[in-house]
Amino acid sequence: MTRGVLLDLAGVIYDGETAIPGGVDAVARLRQAGLAVRFVSNTTRSSKQTVLQHLEALGLTVTKADVFTPAHAAREWLLRNGRAPYLLVHPGLEPDFLELPVRDKRAVIVGDAGEAFTYTVLNDAFRELNAGAELLALATNRTFRDADGGLSLDAGPFVTALEYASLKRATVLGKPSQAFFLSALASMNCPPDQVIMVGDDAEADIAGALRAGISSALLVRTGKYRQGDEKRFDPRPTATVADLAAAADWIIARRD
Amino acid sequence: MTRGVLLDLAGVIYDGETAIPGGVDAVARLRQAGLAVRFVSNTTRSSKQTVLQHLEALGLTVTKADVFTPAHAAREWLLRNGRAPYLLVHPGLEPDFLELPVRDKRAVIVGDAGEAFTYTVLNDAFRELNAGAELLALATNRTFRDADGGLSLDAGPFVTALEYASLKRATVLGKPSQAFFLSALASMNCPPDQVIMVGDDAEADIAGALRAGISSALLVRTGKYRQGDEKRFDPRPTATVADLAAAADWIIARRD
Repeated sequence: MTRGVLLDLAGVIYDGETAIPGGVDAVARLRQAGLAVRFVSNTTRSSKQTVLQHLEALGLTVTKADVFTPAHAAREWLLRNGRAPYLLVHPGLEPDFLELPVRDKRAVIVGDAGEAFTYTVLNDAFRELNAGAELLALATNRTFRDADGGLSLDAGPFVTALEYASLKRATVLGKPSQAFFLSALASMNCPPDQVIMVGDDAEADIAGALRAGISSALLVRTGKYRQGDEKRFDPRPTATVADLAAAADWIIARRD
Repeated sequence: MTRGVLLDLAGVIYDGETAIPGGVDAVARLRQAGLAVRFVSNTTRSSKQTVLQHLEALGLTVTKADVFTPAHAAREWLLRNGRAPYLLVHPGLEPDFLELPVRDKRAVIVGDAGEAFTYTVLNDAFRELNAGAELLALATNRTFRDADGGLSLDAGPFVTALEYASLKRATVLGKPSQAFFLSALASMNCPPDQVIMVGDDAEADIAGALRAGISSALLVRTGKYRQGDEKRFDPRPTATVADLAAAADWIIARRD
């Protein structure tokens, strides 16, 4: 029996500024079918506030508690572990890290910083790590679908570079971290075997969710999806469908 | 019986523009003792011509054939494999890649590009890889000792980033590649068990040489050496000595 659905955002509900056809309506149909819906996004170029505004502009009704972002998880980690952030993130994400208490110890936080990934900034972050800072990865995605339609480097390659240089392992806060999926499940009061994940990233969304114990994961052929992705990572998707509209059909047809 | 010696350059013979005390004299003593000497450098910020001029300025007599650099190995790889280079290297290295034949297929060549590692350039290189280019690493060193005395990011972290993003494995041309060590041995007509390597990098120089079959490797406490380096990587150095002068003493005392 399915009681909850986790949805990725970029590449599933929207591509850049544009809604993916049928996506907003699919969310409404899932909710009308009595399913709890949460949004689990690895996008680390926008603050949570910006993500919420974007979803509202598309016509989706969402509360702050419906959306799970790695930056929010990182903020909670910093408070829990008593560390100040050394940010290697996109400027758009900085609002999520305001007004944290002053601490001596630090944690380097790596997101999808884009053009802000310069040699100097990466080297400074490496020196922080060498001086005792911890390494937090908001996400480990290899690539994202860029504005020009091509794939571009996401946060993952830069996390790997810093791990290699510092001989430290990053704590991953976004997908595919099990803790990240589980925090979304907890908010729905659903065990993993009553939840379905829908995403366009065969690795972070699909293999990640299945490895976290979620029973089913649907790969959509929108966003960053490339032919053959369903066979590229293990575990493989429960099913591969055209888009979120088709995913909603699949879920509603099999919900009991 | 020892017949040949391989010497690293930066951190062993010189630090930046400055000669390490006793280094040039140590090379002369090794040669006077009848040992063949070759220089195996992973420095990828200077062309071979510049390296030779630098050594001459320090008072060392060296020929082109005495010095082995990853760029030279890369040039030979390109000619052998019929590929044109897509260079992600320091501007100082570009002279080593002039006048290569025009080819359709490409190879991304990653060196220690320093400030030239921008997001845009790394992303362009990733897209070349995604379009079918091969990945060549001039070196995989994690760090080097920078002008300010601190450790800075070398080529390795950026090679790892591109491997992670493209799901391709780099062909490594400099140390610790076995082929690189063996090409230097071949020029001396020495089998690996008659050669000693001296370097300041416990991983690329020492563990690399020993893994390539070279019988002994001496770690010097100059250059990038940090306390405890001798215990950080396997196999561990045959001995750890103060500097190249002490290494020459060690080698000459045990040469038979």
